Amino acid sequence: MTTVPSRRRPTIDDVAEAAGVSRGTVSRVLNGGRWVSQDAKAAVDAAIRKTGYRVNPHARSLATNRTGSVAFLLTEDHQLLFEDPNFSMLLTGAAQALAERQLSLVLIMAGSAAEQERALAYIEAGHVDGVLLVSAHSGQRLISDIVDSKVPAIACGIPLGFQKRLGYVAADDLEGAREMVAHLRGLGRERIATIAGPEDTPGGVTRLEGYRLELGEAFDERLVRHGDYGRASGEAAMRELLEADPTIDAVFVANDRMAAGAIDALRTAGRRVPEDVAVGGFDDSSIAVGTDPALTTMRQPFERISAEMVRLLLQVIEGERPAAITLPTELVVRDSA
Amino acid sequence: MTTVPSRRRPTIDDVAEAAGVSRGTVSRVLNGGRWVSQDAKAAVDAAIRKTGYRVNPHARSLATNRTGSVAFLLTEDHQLLFEDPNFSMLLTGAAQALAERQLSLVLIMAGSAAEQERALAYIEAGHVDGVLLVSAHSGQRLISDIVDSKVPAIACGIPLGFQKRLGYVAADDLEGAREMVAHLRGLGRERIATIAGPEDTPGGVTRLEGYRLELGEAFDERLVRHGDYGRASGEAAMRELLEADPTIDAVFVANDRMAAGAIDALRTAGRRVPEDVAVGGFDDSSIAVGTDPALTTMRQPFERISAEMVRLLLQVIEGERPAAITLPTELVVRDSA
Repeated sequence: MTTVPSRRRPTIDDVAEAAGVSRGTVSRVLNGGRWVSQDAKAAVDAAIRKTGYRVNPHARSLATNRTGSVAFLLTEDHQLLFEDPNFSMLLTGAAQALAERQLSLVLIMAGSAAEQERALAYIEAGHVDGVLLVSAHSGQRLISDIVDSKVPAIACGIPLGFQKRLGYVAADDLEGAREMVAHLRGLGRERIATIAGPEDTPGGVTRLEGYRLELGEAFDERLVRHGDYGRASGEAAMRELLEADPTIDAVFVANDRMAAGAIDALRTAGRRVPEDVAVGGFDDSSIAVGTDPALTTMRQPFERISAEMVRLLLQVIEGERPAAITLPTELVVRDSA
Repeated sequence: MTTVPSRRRPTIDDVAEAAGVSRGTVSRVLNGGRWVSQDAKAAVDAAIRKTGYRVNPHARSLATNRTGSVAFLLTEDHQLLFEDPNFSMLLTGAAQALAERQLSLVLIMAGSAAEQERALAYIEAGHVDGVLLVSAHSGQRLISDIVDSKVPAIACGIPLGFQKRLGYVAADDLEGAREMVAHLRGLGRERIATIAGPEDTPGGVTRLEGYRLELGEAFDERLVRHGDYGRASGEAAMRELLEADPTIDAVFVANDRMAAGAIDALRTAGRRVPEDVAVGGFDDSSIAVGTDPALTTMRQPFERISAEMVRLLLQVIEGERPAAITLPTELVVRDSA
């Protein structure tokens, strides 16, 4: 009879034995290596490699009182996750950044007040270690509840009214808007309208402010409309703008989805893009290459935004005070302007 | 001085006082009404309406040892959630069915082995009350781990190899495939090929079996190819089929995404759809109306599937033995066949 090698999973005791240290020492190394000598740490690391030991994430979470998971909390209705490509890009980037740190992402979508109340209860009950807060309209009760709850959280975009209490990662909306308007002016356009986002969102406020600042004395309130970031609202706003002023020769639209709608309205009205009316968007989402003509837009660095959100959140979980990061946008010139 | 009415949130004690019962009685009514007389229950219900008391979901979960949340566990890479409209339909339906019962959905995407291990640890740690298991290729370690863990779970589609131990909700793949093949034959088509799904998925196995059964003696192995449910794989498979047999006059494709790819390949090869080659899909996802020509397909009742999954899962959470449900599909005739 030959001895069949045991195929059981190596345990922490196997590592301790192979390293010639106590089980507690192995545990301390696994949980960050505090109060462990360099020699002991090197021995444990070698023993982990030798035994093929893998951390049991469950056991680890029991030891550290952590769940190993972070919530990606989208305070919007479910279907928007699929309609707005920005969210899928942020979600994918965040999941990747978390996976690199052996952490899980749980996605919670909470559009209605009842859903938000349940999401808050779930988060406060300790089922996640922190929250990536995405698409929060200001004035939402949920933001102040999360800030009050002291659960580690980082917002995507400036959390209007909570800048001092909640860390965030935002694209530079102000400079991005200014750069797009400067680009349109550089093309010789003189009647530049804008379709801004909702007034309770940072993008809605700040991109409009950039437009206003860049135009300076040329700013004309009659050339401003607001949409809800959806394609249909961009189409309706463009129609209104053309009715209000048929001499409009360019439009800066605060996101790509509304810009696609604006192009629809211009085509219906018989205006050529960009010959008659130049169109500039914001996001550089997958929509921008699908419009006809392809959309000139400001690129938001979504991957960098989600990676930085994860980095900041982990700092907050470790007890650091929350930081705020603003990342530059980039002009992407295609065919619409 | 007038008395300002208190705006504090009504508590369980307020309800008990208004109902003239003990706090314990109110608590029992809130948690399902066991061991409470009809009269006391009526009094508590009236008191809840009078005081405007709302259940604090956090307190409730502490009392019942439940989290109030269910995981929608998608064992696929993140981007597939956005590429395959079936998943978004199932997700939206499940979230809605859960919301109607005051439960939250947390979405966990776990494509890699490491992600699946972390997801399992999270689920086993009790952070959700149950699991809706979506898109599980058979042979995935995760399915057997979840079955072994005794966490309440319901699969979407037949969990190959675990039918006895895991409840599920599936569309009737066998009859659906037969009906589509019968439809193609009814159009007078004689060389009917098929592009099946992966052999480790229930849809891949069972739709192929339906095709084989319906063709009977006309079945010809040379007219069978397998794809991975992605559009590119449908295009490649169709190209191979045309090379293998240029007389093919119809093709049954096991999902709409691959059918869209097959239509691409047919166009490239200069074949008209449906005149030269009729194409039948499976799903009736949003893709079916976007192809040119619009796709004739078998409708999967996604909304009903997700609603039934939630219903069965709640039964399992309450301690019932798992049921299995098969739902009928429906032929949707458009232009491709």
